[in-house]
Amino acid sequence: MTTDTPEPTIEDRRDTTPEELDVLMERAAAAAPLLAALAPAERARLLRAVAEALDAAADELVPIAQAEAHYPEARCRGELGRTTFQLRLFADVLEEGSHLEAMIDPADPDWGTPRPDVRRLLVPLGPVVVFGASNFPFAFATAGGDTASALAAGCPVIVKAHPGHLRLARRTTEIVIDALDAAGAPEGVFGLVEGVEVGRLAVLHPLTRAVGFTGSIPGGRALFDLAVSRPDPIPFYGELGSVNPVFVTRAAMEARGGDILSGYADSATLGAGQFCTKPGVVFVPEDAALDALVTDFAGRTAAPLLNERVADGFARGLDTLAGHPATKVLVQGAEGEDGAWSPSLLRTDLDSLLEHSETLLEECFGPCTLVVTYADERRLLEAAGVLHGQLTVTVHGEEDDAIAPALLALGASLAGRVVWNGWPTGVAVTHAMTHGGPYPATTAPLHTSVGTTAIQRFLRPVTYQSVPQSLLPEALRDDNPLGVPRRVDGAAPTV
Amino acid sequence: MTTDTPEPTIEDRRDTTPEELDVLMERAAAAAPLLAALAPAERARLLRAVAEALDAAADELVPIAQAEAHYPEARCRGELGRTTFQLRLFADVLEEGSHLEAMIDPADPDWGTPRPDVRRLLVPLGPVVVFGASNFPFAFATAGGDTASALAAGCPVIVKAHPGHLRLARRTTEIVIDALDAAGAPEGVFGLVEGVEVGRLAVLHPLTRAVGFTGSIPGGRALFDLAVSRPDPIPFYGELGSVNPVFVTRAAMEARGGDILSGYADSATLGAGQFCTKPGVVFVPEDAALDALVTDFAGRTAAPLLNERVADGFARGLDTLAGHPATKVLVQGAEGEDGAWSPSLLRTDLDSLLEHSETLLEECFGPCTLVVTYADERRLLEAAGVLHGQLTVTVHGEEDDAIAPALLALGASLAGRVVWNGWPTGVAVTHAMTHGGPYPATTAPLHTSVGTTAIQRFLRPVTYQSVPQSLLPEALRDDNPLGVPRRVDGAAPTV
Repeated sequence: MTTDTPEPTIEDRRDTTPEELDVLMERAAAAAPLLAALAPAERARLLRAVAEALDAAADELVPIAQAEAHYPEARCRGELGRTTFQLRLFADVLEEGSHLEAMIDPADPDWGTPRPDVRRLLVPLGPVVVFGASNFPFAFATAGGDTASALAAGCPVIVKAHPGHLRLARRTTEIVIDALDAAGAPEGVFGLVEGVEVGRLAVLHPLTRAVGFTGSIPGGRALFDLAVSRPDPIPFYGELGSVNPVFVTRAAMEARGGDILSGYADSATLGAGQFCTKPGVVFVPEDAALDALVTDFAGRTAAPLLNERVADGFARGLDTLAGHPATKVLVQGAEGEDGAWSPSLLRTDLDSLLEHSETLLEECFGPCTLVVTYADERRLLEAAGVLHGQLTVTVHGEEDDAIAPALLALGASLAGRVVWNGWPTGVAVTHAMTHGGPYPATTAPLHTSVGTTAIQRFLRPVTYQSVPQSLLPEALRDDNPLGVPRRVDGAAPTV
Repeated sequence: MTTDTPEPTIEDRRDTTPEELDVLMERAAAAAPLLAALAPAERARLLRAVAEALDAAADELVPIAQAEAHYPEARCRGELGRTTFQLRLFADVLEEGSHLEAMIDPADPDWGTPRPDVRRLLVPLGPVVVFGASNFPFAFATAGGDTASALAAGCPVIVKAHPGHLRLARRTTEIVIDALDAAGAPEGVFGLVEGVEVGRLAVLHPLTRAVGFTGSIPGGRALFDLAVSRPDPIPFYGELGSVNPVFVTRAAMEARGGDILSGYADSATLGAGQFCTKPGVVFVPEDAALDALVTDFAGRTAAPLLNERVADGFARGLDTLAGHPATKVLVQGAEGEDGAWSPSLLRTDLDSLLEHSETLLEECFGPCTLVVTYADERRLLEAAGVLHGQLTVTVHGEEDDAIAPALLALGASLAGRVVWNGWPTGVAVTHAMTHGGPYPATTAPLHTSVGTTAIQRFLRPVTYQSVPQSLLPEALRDDNPLGVPRRVDGAAPTV
């Protein structure tokens, strides 16, 4: 933490008024058709301009993030790098064009139903409201994944700043708007609002067409309920909670138990356990030697949590777990100065977990994780009955493990990502990534908030029937001036 | 209508009990992983077996449909043909494999974020509840589009029968189940329930993973509200209401007004106006000659409506429109025997429509349509401010019409399909079709309920990280044994 950038105080806070929100939403709605009409290469240029401006401001932004989120400098620099990489990757995707899912079915008199010429592509939804996350002040906040994917889709974005990093949100917004202006973006494509109540109003605003959110289950569910209660319900992409179970088979533990448990300790305590992909539960054989793991956890130092609210929630969650008659505390983390916590390690067994799953499988956001011992490996599959939707399921096994296929299938049935002999923290920003899953991992199981297909959340299909060449969108014209991959008559796409 | 197949009476009805629903849902949930595990070619075989069985039973099924839905034989035969064509088309799609959206990103140490080997494909959601529509006893009912796309996706289906064609639903169900059994499908992949209350319970059932619905705005919204109120909200694909506006430019009316108006009359009265894509509002220049249109409408005979509920709703809607001070009745349809109605034609002007849009733009399901006259063509764009989300927007124009690009853009902003110099009725079942749109056209604007991409509604992405070849799903293995198109490292798909 730096000392020359003071923490924000309550005086810094100023709630955006409903009237100010109206102005921002109206400007965003006016900008929407202009942004949508830009050629993909033009929108790519805008994203790259934002990335360059943020990279150039790293020395200014990183200290603010350190002060507000209490992360070390390296973490903040790394996260900013991830954020600008993401913007540039989405720019590349725009130029490639597969995200438009363009299709052409020429008229066919011999088809099974009357078939005129029909051509389909995806178009932007319109203004998107993005709620910044507490734990990623760059990558899941103002100019983070939701914003990058919505802008790439061609949707203006209004960000609701997370109260934990208001100053970073404000300064990032200034830089983003300046970069967009300088690059010639339509006015009003980006804005920032602050305050709890204005966040609710933004979800309910008639001009809002979709919402991106990363946060807690109660907070996310409350906003989801608002989004679907509107006279015109809108898509709400909420990434809420996950305990990210890890299954270690007997064979894997025998082969390389030490490495597995030390990798687990690293993953579970990364960022003081404040990752949505933190492995919160690990299943190990009951005879596994846990001494080294206990020593490892006990030797780890305290790290500050994001803010008071996170610290309070963590303390409550840890109390509940540690005080539960079915758990045993292996390492009791301690609260240090400035709300710092050293990591806690708890233990229970499979039968207890199955019996008390609602309490023991509640996400505890922070440096705390639960070891679950099992006697009969085959009974691990019973966990499927008590685990809710997850962002990730991890399996540590041997390739010829009899139980491995069933555990991977269990993972695919519960989660958006199945990890083999690795760790769920550290989500690669790439094409094939899924950061999502059934509720409560997300409120929209068909989608991902990380990776290039995150763009698809903010696009909807439109079919043009019998429209002449000169009036078709460029991506659908016979001569394909944009060079977009297109499925013709249901065949695999060609350019 | 045939006379040897009596209409169903209230005595025919028997509500499925909650206990029976439980049994069906549990069987469906048990079948889900088995159906999902079938190779795509195997699932294709099941769909084709159902199509063959339904075609073979045409002579038995068509008279039941005629008796229950009051449609002529040709319409029923055509609709059954559309239904079995759809099942076979979806079978072809399964064998092609693009619907899996498979992606492979090999590990890359030079990537912008740590990047292990990640591979993505789509997996089935699980049991789907489908609500049959009143107006398509075959194509949007028991074995209709929602069922075909859910089964193609690999999801078991429980159909809630529409009360308007219970006997057809029951007999179709028997044929579908027999065909699936004979083809070796897992037991429990298909079932039928009856009754309003059990429909609500099916939406709320813990094992239900998604809902497909076609019907009215109030009915659909009530079920949508249930789906999103669950402890674990689930996707609800509701296709609700649309007035499908048609814009006729001045130049088009001058060039071929007679043809346009006669095409309009045909489209608006097709199936007694009981299409979700019925053009309910047409905008024409104020000096357009409407005499021939009036004569055309006045000469059309009465056709029976689907059932008493539809007839009652239509009579109410027509009363509201005809009695409104801003409308003029050009042709007053009359109620004949057996609830038959001849078509009605009404007129208003653009200013009145803008002023009274909430009443005048309410969908009136049945043989009734509203002509809106305009003086200044450029003011047509003001309609965008009062029209809600639509399934279709149609433009009749000349290619060099100055207003044409703006009207097509208006269409794309409001609707899932934009039709040029054609009619919205008759939705082609093909790859590039979109039958969907912003609310209230649907509750899920990112999706379509007609066309092969309807399958995507029932699939969600799963990413496999660092999983060894032998444990990967076949579609993601290096040697691609299924021959599925795959995007590798973000490039356009190849097999």
